[in-house]
Amino acid sequence: MAELTLAAANSIIAAALEAGAEAGFKPLTVAVLDAGGHLKAFQKQDGASMLRYEIAFGKAYGSLAVGMGSRWLDKNAKERPHFIEGLTAVSGGRIVAVPGGVLIRDAAGTLLGAVGVTGDTSDNDEICAVAGIKAAGLVAQVD
Amino acid sequence: MAELTLAAANSIIAAALEAGAEAGFKPLTVAVLDAGGHLKAFQKQDGASMLRYEIAFGKAYGSLAVGMGSRWLDKNAKERPHFIEGLTAVSGGRIVAVPGGVLIRDAAGTLLGAVGVTGDTSDNDEICAVAGIKAAGLVAQVD
Amino acid sequence: MAELTLAAANSIIAAALEAGAEAGFKPLTVAVLDAGGHLKAFQKQDGASMLRYEIAFGKAYGSLAVGMGSRWLDKNAKERPHFIEGLTAVSGGRIVAVPGGVLIRDAAGTLLGAVGVTGDTSDNDEICAVAGIKAAGLVAQVD
Amino acid sequence: MAELTLAAANSIIAAALEAGAEAGFKPLTVAVLDAGGHLKAFQKQDGASMLRYEIAFGKAYGSLAVGMGSRWLDKNAKERPHFIEGLTAVSGGRIVAVPGGVLIRDAAGTLLGAVGVTGDTSDNDEICAVAGIKAAGLVAQVD
Repeated sequence: MAELTLAAANSIIAAALEAGAEAGFKPLTVAVLDAGGHLKAFQKQDGASMLRYEIAFGKAYGSLAVGMGSRWLDKNAKERPHFIEGLTAVSGGRIVAVPGGVLIRDAAGTLLGAVGVTGDTSDNDEICAVAGIKAAGLVAQVD
Repeated sequence: MAELTLAAANSIIAAALEAGAEAGFKPLTVAVLDAGGHLKAFQKQDGASMLRYEIAFGKAYGSLAVGMGSRWLDKNAKERPHFIEGLTAVSGGRIVAVPGGVLIRDAAGTLLGAVGVTGDTSDNDEICAVAGIKAAGLVAQVD
Repeated sequence: MAELTLAAANSIIAAALEAGAEAGFKPLTVAVLDAGGHLKAFQKQDGASMLRYEIAFGKAYGSLAVGMGSRWLDKNAKERPHFIEGLTAVSGGRIVAVPGGVLIRDAAGTLLGAVGVTGDTSDNDEICAVAGIKAAGLVAQVD
Repeated sequence: MAELTLAAANSIIAAALEAGAEAGFKPLTVAVLDAGGHLKAFQKQDGASMLRYEIAFGKAYGSLAVGMGSRWLDKNAKERPHFIEGLTAVSGGRIVAVPGGVLIRDAAGTLLGAVGVTGDTSDNDEICAVAGIKAAGLVAQVD
């Protein structure tokens, strides 16, 4: 499996939302992107606020931009904020540098895409992203 | 029912994709937006080309922009192209004025959102959008 | 080979430029993009005018957007200009809908990326793009 | 020599990539811009992450913007961040203010363009940019 299928993307979303429901998290929004940064599948739970698509996309897109989970971006934003500001600028304003964006790899380590989750705390969002990826039999990279 | 639920949005997508598969159409991409123009749910079938999210979104967004299905936009683009050009400009470049963007209403006529479909001919895309909306027990407006 | 390597991209550019030189074409600019629309390799010959990167990129990006060579976009721009205008808008102004953007596939038909050539007539640009792809042992799709 | 030739730009990239390989750095991406800020040549090594073109371009573009290597921008971003934020804004979001963007001058001091390197640490990126420029018989300015 060298490409992210729609079936896999839908599985990731379903499992991420289930993980959030079991933990009692707030309404979640989940975006799954392919390795080129293009949206593959997306769901926004009832009660989620207006700009949640943009936030979920931005976490996943930022992860793909640098080849690291968005937790790495979050750390960099604190240590050298001007790098993340520059990255945000050259991306055309598509990056949200907080945890919850997680790279999706297959067992061989090939990059398939990224998932972005938003709605609860960033740490909880990341937990759901990882749960979704694992439930689909794939490998999650958070930083 | 005055709001588009995630369950309804997912039903619309599933039925639209099923209609396309039954008719032997090319891989489809389906975007469902709420009445505020914000993405609620989305799926892009395997084999669909790169920019299909943007096209599907643009058909649905254009429909909401004027309160008519995107078939109306298509007709206007031929009759008075400068109106559609202006509409595209003031939307920030978010509108694709060809059929396949269909308004979603409930039985009372309340606007719930819009669905945009792309991948086959614009006419076939619209057929799938309407099939998806009807299967969810809602009302479709194509122009 | 399911991914476009830098070695292949460099081969495509070298052969495209050689084809142009042999035919006595004007200075050429060649951009090679991966399947996700991201730049992999690029060369602009001495004497080429200022915005040639943007044009070469736009032809290749437009091809990937719809999964067809940019000759298909050129034909559509004449038949239903409002579709190409909408596509240009939702791409963020990244599409140049004239011949010279050609899809790169491997022998099995897998999409690897696209090449965009500009500098001479659009027809001649396309000839060089195809020559480059073939010289690298890959398959060209012009419409 | 008052202008950056394609031959020189290709030499810079080849030598920068070789320097990175010899030092065991991560996959690199190298952009060479002419003195007007327009892309002349570019290569992205296999395994480099998605947005590396934008980052490499942003380092080189930022250098040309102020006539200093991007190490100077990095220092300014720490001392008076509002200047770099303003510069980023007025550039249309084209600047990445960390080391790795290096000005290219000829022996007489004439500005020919800039090279931007990304992929490893910013300091290592700069080492490769300088090695590339020197190998082409030109003069590097890092701050």
